[in-house]
Amino acid sequence: MGIVVNLEGERDKKPSFDDLSALVGEDMTAVNALILKRMESPVALIPQLAGHVISAGGKRLRPMLTLASAKLCGYRGARHVTLATCIEFIHTATLLHDDVVDESALRRGLASANSVWGNQASVLVGDFLFSRAFELMVEDGSVTVMGILSSASARLAEGEVMQLMTANDTETGETAYLEVIKAKTAQLFAAACRLGAIVAERPKIEEEAVQAFGMNLGIAFQLIDDVLDYSAKQATLGKTVGDDFREGKITLPVILAFRRGDDEERKFWRRTLGDLDQTDGDLEHAFGLLQRHAALSDTVERARHYGAIARDSLGIFPESDIKAALISLIDFCIERPY
Amino acid sequence: MGIVVNLEGERDKKPSFDDLSALVGEDMTAVNALILKRMESPVALIPQLAGHVISAGGKRLRPMLTLASAKLCGYRGARHVTLATCIEFIHTATLLHDDVVDESALRRGLASANSVWGNQASVLVGDFLFSRAFELMVEDGSVTVMGILSSASARLAEGEVMQLMTANDTETGETAYLEVIKAKTAQLFAAACRLGAIVAERPKIEEEAVQAFGMNLGIAFQLIDDVLDYSAKQATLGKTVGDDFREGKITLPVILAFRRGDDEERKFWRRTLGDLDQTDGDLEHAFGLLQRHAALSDTVERARHYGAIARDSLGIFPESDIKAALISLIDFCIERPY
Repeated sequence: MGIVVNLEGERDKKPSFDDLSALVGEDMTAVNALILKRMESPVALIPQLAGHVISAGGKRLRPMLTLASAKLCGYRGARHVTLATCIEFIHTATLLHDDVVDESALRRGLASANSVWGNQASVLVGDFLFSRAFELMVEDGSVTVMGILSSASARLAEGEVMQLMTANDTETGETAYLEVIKAKTAQLFAAACRLGAIVAERPKIEEEAVQAFGMNLGIAFQLIDDVLDYSAKQATLGKTVGDDFREGKITLPVILAFRRGDDEERKFWRRTLGDLDQTDGDLEHAFGLLQRHAALSDTVERARHYGAIARDSLGIFPESDIKAALISLIDFCIERPY
Repeated sequence: MGIVVNLEGERDKKPSFDDLSALVGEDMTAVNALILKRMESPVALIPQLAGHVISAGGKRLRPMLTLASAKLCGYRGARHVTLATCIEFIHTATLLHDDVVDESALRRGLASANSVWGNQASVLVGDFLFSRAFELMVEDGSVTVMGILSSASARLAEGEVMQLMTANDTETGETAYLEVIKAKTAQLFAAACRLGAIVAERPKIEEEAVQAFGMNLGIAFQLIDDVLDYSAKQATLGKTVGDDFREGKITLPVILAFRRGDDEERKFWRRTLGDLDQTDGDLEHAFGLLQRHAALSDTVERARHYGAIARDSLGIFPESDIKAALISLIDFCIERPY
């Protein structure tokens, strides 16, 4: 099922997450401990449900960005641990609400929280984690940080609403799609990175550099995520192949295939994604159209473009292990197993 | 349908909301303008949906508490307008999420947002308003205020989860029920009042006094709300009579009737609320049981108890128009049309 986009063999060393994990490992242990401590509540269902999502084997990519950015900026204190935890709580809250919005049954190969505890609990525990994130920021005490994260959260919600409104709209163009993924994904990556420079009290140029790194990495990450939804080896990542198709989500691969296709093909996309009128074989047919128009491999190309910007944005920092690991992270995000 | 609990004729003047409305009218105009301004978003659905809920004719009770408390404390600045707006945004966000959780079709006599735009949009616009509230707090700039409101929001979410967990549990006792309504309702009232003393920079005793006023008023308010759900004149308030019954919500009227009833009656409550196995005539039968055990009128008595505490908590303030209006508000909340 699906299309294998083979990106191997382009580099000597397979890009991996391990270097970065090792470099921020100690800090990440502190973040994990703080996550466990601060998702506690006298209301037992809250840590149960939150724990299910948080321990479900996510890569902790976003909090890791805060830790790595702080390290890149030479920070020596402990505030980054608190702020990385805030980022993970905000992210987890949006995952919980996303699963309700998408009516997802699976999340990273496990039953999603809403399918175990119901939509109601998922909405409310999401609200709790979101509030808890703000409580943590208050403990940190920086109004600058609170400004960044409250704006990021508002933008994130805007992005999700935009996505909802463009769902099933096959007319959506690449520009509108980019707006959505910037808002719903990339700017939380950007904020996560920016916090590292802020706690280290680095000059504006460095703050903007890590922010640009995060923003472009986030765009690349989401583009690849949208490719993976149509990808053969998806099952190994614990997601169901074709979820976006079944929900009628308009992602870049579809936008490209729609615009490059003929009237007959556009009719197909309108029926399956616009009207959600799908029958057996439609997903297979979609795979074929995506392949015919090189829509998946060109989406990967677009991701490489943003990856290149992310890489260059780190140019002002001197060479170091952490810088090398962040650059390797770009490759990892783009060359994730397909 | 339902039981008319007649509380008229106990006082010369019918308690009303008008004195308070008049005293803070100018500030409330500013709050309404700020609400409209700050629910704006380039994503058109957001102000549409938020506007539907916010303009749906709520009493704006919570922001009014902030304004009134600030006035009681002699505040002369403009911060209370911003903070009252925060309170209304947090409240509106929880209304949106509540309606999703409860699957409500109506809110204040109008179609609920989720029934017009779907649960998905309601969840996300709630998230947006919540984030926007924090953005407003950041503009205000007080970490103390952010601490109060982030904790209040976390407690609120805990209260909602507690309520979800006790839903359909006919064994729930009065103490557990009180915990729920304190968390989900009363402490936002308390926070709203406390902010008035904080912007006025009043001593701890006054801050605690207005906070206690808000907490006890909030408990009384929620108790009466729970009575109204079984009350005859409910339809005039634009709510559906018996919603709590149909959803199996365990509120104080039911807790009292359950505990005062015999085995046969408890079987009835277990079937209808515990198992949600309801047939025609069950709601009528519930009305009869509530009346037999004076469960509604005794819930009103409980509300009066908290109303009395609220009244006494204002004792340290000298007599004034605004103090009189706040005391009249207690009576209004308790003697709302049944």
